[in-house]
Amino acid sequence: MTSVQEAYRKKTRQSARLFTKAKKVHINGVHHNIRFFEPYPFITKSAEGKFLKDVDSNKYVDYWMGHWSLILGHAQKQIQKKAVGQLKKGWMHGTSNENAISLSEKISKVVPVAEKIRYASTGTEATMYSVRLARAVTGKKIIAKIDGGWHGYTTDLLKTVNWPFDVPESQGLTDEEHIISLPLNNLQESLKIINSVKKDLAGVLIEPVLGGGGAIPATQEYLKGIQEIVKTNNALFMLDEIVTGFRFRYGCIYPTMKLDPDIVTLGKIVGGGFPIGVICGKDEIMEHANTSVNSKKNRTYIGGGTFSANPLTMVAGDTTLDVLKNKKNILYKKLDRLGSDTTKMLRKIFSHDAIVTGKGSLFMTHFPRNGMTEINNAADAAKCDSAKLFNYHFEMIARDGIFFLPGKLGAFSDAHSISDVKEMKKATERFASNFKR
Amino acid sequence: MTSVQEAYRKKTRQSARLFTKAKKVHINGVHHNIRFFEPYPFITKSAEGKFLKDVDSNKYVDYWMGHWSLILGHAQKQIQKKAVGQLKKGWMHGTSNENAISLSEKISKVVPVAEKIRYASTGTEATMYSVRLARAVTGKKIIAKIDGGWHGYTTDLLKTVNWPFDVPESQGLTDEEHIISLPLNNLQESLKIINSVKKDLAGVLIEPVLGGGGAIPATQEYLKGIQEIVKTNNALFMLDEIVTGFRFRYGCIYPTMKLDPDIVTLGKIVGGGFPIGVICGKDEIMEHANTSVNSKKNRTYIGGGTFSANPLTMVAGDTTLDVLKNKKNILYKKLDRLGSDTTKMLRKIFSHDAIVTGKGSLFMTHFPRNGMTEINNAADAAKCDSAKLFNYHFEMIARDGIFFLPGKLGAFSDAHSISDVKEMKKATERFASNFKR
Repeated sequence: MTSVQEAYRKKTRQSARLFTKAKKVHINGVHHNIRFFEPYPFITKSAEGKFLKDVDSNKYVDYWMGHWSLILGHAQKQIQKKAVGQLKKGWMHGTSNENAISLSEKISKVVPVAEKIRYASTGTEATMYSVRLARAVTGKKIIAKIDGGWHGYTTDLLKTVNWPFDVPESQGLTDEEHIISLPLNNLQESLKIINSVKKDLAGVLIEPVLGGGGAIPATQEYLKGIQEIVKTNNALFMLDEIVTGFRFRYGCIYPTMKLDPDIVTLGKIVGGGFPIGVICGKDEIMEHANTSVNSKKNRTYIGGGTFSANPLTMVAGDTTLDVLKNKKNILYKKLDRLGSDTTKMLRKIFSHDAIVTGKGSLFMTHFPRNGMTEINNAADAAKCDSAKLFNYHFEMIARDGIFFLPGKLGAFSDAHSISDVKEMKKATERFASNFKR
Repeated sequence: MTSVQEAYRKKTRQSARLFTKAKKVHINGVHHNIRFFEPYPFITKSAEGKFLKDVDSNKYVDYWMGHWSLILGHAQKQIQKKAVGQLKKGWMHGTSNENAISLSEKISKVVPVAEKIRYASTGTEATMYSVRLARAVTGKKIIAKIDGGWHGYTTDLLKTVNWPFDVPESQGLTDEEHIISLPLNNLQESLKIINSVKKDLAGVLIEPVLGGGGAIPATQEYLKGIQEIVKTNNALFMLDEIVTGFRFRYGCIYPTMKLDPDIVTLGKIVGGGFPIGVICGKDEIMEHANTSVNSKKNRTYIGGGTFSANPLTMVAGDTTLDVLKNKKNILYKKLDRLGSDTTKMLRKIFSHDAIVTGKGSLFMTHFPRNGMTEINNAADAAKCDSAKLFNYHFEMIARDGIFFLPGKLGAFSDAHSISDVKEMKKATERFASNFKR
């Protein structure tokens, strides 16, 4: 491993120098904990298409893709052109703009639950407001999430994100008792947990594909089972499609699973890489947040922020959906193909040494221990060898110019091609041959 | 009033048409509750310098200035140029960038408490994380805020924002019992309240000038008194300078008041109008959030989000501080002068019919009732005639092309000049002469 470290240090000297400065002014040198990796993360100078370029002029084929928000690649030309045009017309009006209407009409058209939309500036905010709506609408308090479910750092959902799930995610939280947690794809156990609190259940919030928790798809059977018990108990069924929305098709994934959520959150892709969080809901639910028809005594406050629906994010999102719609038939097929080719490739190389999870253009390699053969939820994923995954990813960064955020799932974009799978194959074969037992 | 309404409706026909569409897809047509005003808000097409231009091509001299974030005016050229350059290098790297280091070094240099900085994407997030840090560091739970204090819609601080303060701000909140509230500038009463909970006091969070609550400056005596009792009780003294930071001088306002906060939040101006929230704190406090030195059992999670420290916001903030630093001697004097001239002008015209509050380039007109002669806190402000203020602002929108967000304080920017004060004077004289009793 030392030589890989040396290779990385040797080629990232400017990054090392700058990261020393970063650590002087920033906590651990970064602004999102997961962006730090040992010995230090490189500093990005620019990004275009599938490439990140660092301050030492190293190029990396990027599979992190802006926290998976850039389905069209970095600095995509059509978005860039519209964004430049918007900069000339102001980026922060602080008032209403037409771009937001256009984006919402496009979302509403293909996301049935989006009878009404409100924009926040981040996914963290969007999920916070969804949970607040669920509590307001039902008059109940408990929110169920999924073990390993990641909905941002919001106080309202910061629990059972990382293993061990019974240890709080953070100090300084005051109200974890109103959050409970379910094991993904274990319907029987999940129903049992829900039944134990059903009188005070306000809602359940689920990612249809567990993102940060390990690229693990929820089964249709599981989601339908949860939806049923939630509706039976007059609680809200909420899906967090911040990662999955417009990732596998032009729209959300939930309609393909014949689900009927009350609220869906979007983000990432629908902002074209600009700050966004979206709360989509049915009319009767969203009406609770209408401050013109509700008084202080019965209104629900959601979505307010200086940067909400700013014209730059709105035009970037609107343009992204235009581009996606125009090429959806080709694009999603291509992305699915890249994902499935990669999955097959990884399974072939690693054989029994790895389990590859994911869906469509999202994929993740897990190195199981103790003979585990399936990964159905975040607890399974947590039992895998994360140090080995780090080494695999880090070696590709150091030796091959291939960037996964170490330990995280990868995502293809329109800027990638089959040649990238081949490059990943070569790198993976070398890594696999070195650790074969 | 009908004729003012007619004048507005007549000149904003395209806005009316678009707002009808907006209401079909958006809750009450907007994405921040305060952006709605009767009969409907105009839709902005573009903004430049001091002007907002709507879709009917009406121009408005803007005093809302992007929720007071645009101290250099709309679409400022130097920021615009750097932002365009950044768009070509990617707007969402998802990794570390040098722009963030540069911005932080500038902030640290003039904001003493900023020994360490972490970026969030909104002020709502920044205050949420500050409160979390206070609870983590102290192991206590209660946060005191100010009546009328506005720190975003975060669950952790959404209490006593609007009158009546004893009614919850929103349905769906679960943990209001750990928030208490103090009357601004009433030290005796505030000390009494703090003393009643001092054993579990984690911290106090105060805006040095109450923003949304009515442009009411806190006195130095009040802030010093609060700081003293907070420190005596081993709690954290936190200042929310999201509105005031770099508004009155190149830096924060607190050093001029000889205060020693543990955490300061910034936003708005330091992002150049791009989405930002900043948590600045002393090393020993911020170290709690360092996930490299703390395990899951004792770490505090702050600042994580897809868009945190994105290179576009960072370059815009960095450029803004460059411009501000270069012209600070002239600029802040100019802004102070515009503010004081306006305040004098308004006081002269309205005489005893209005109280004008504010500081520097921030100003707000209040129409007192029942012989009130002073406004020292949000309760005083709430007792004023808000309908009259709405009418005053709305008439200027409809007749004069002068835009205040109805009911909110105004802010000057570098794009404004003394001629704008004269235009405001004319409009104000007409309004005043019409309602004189």
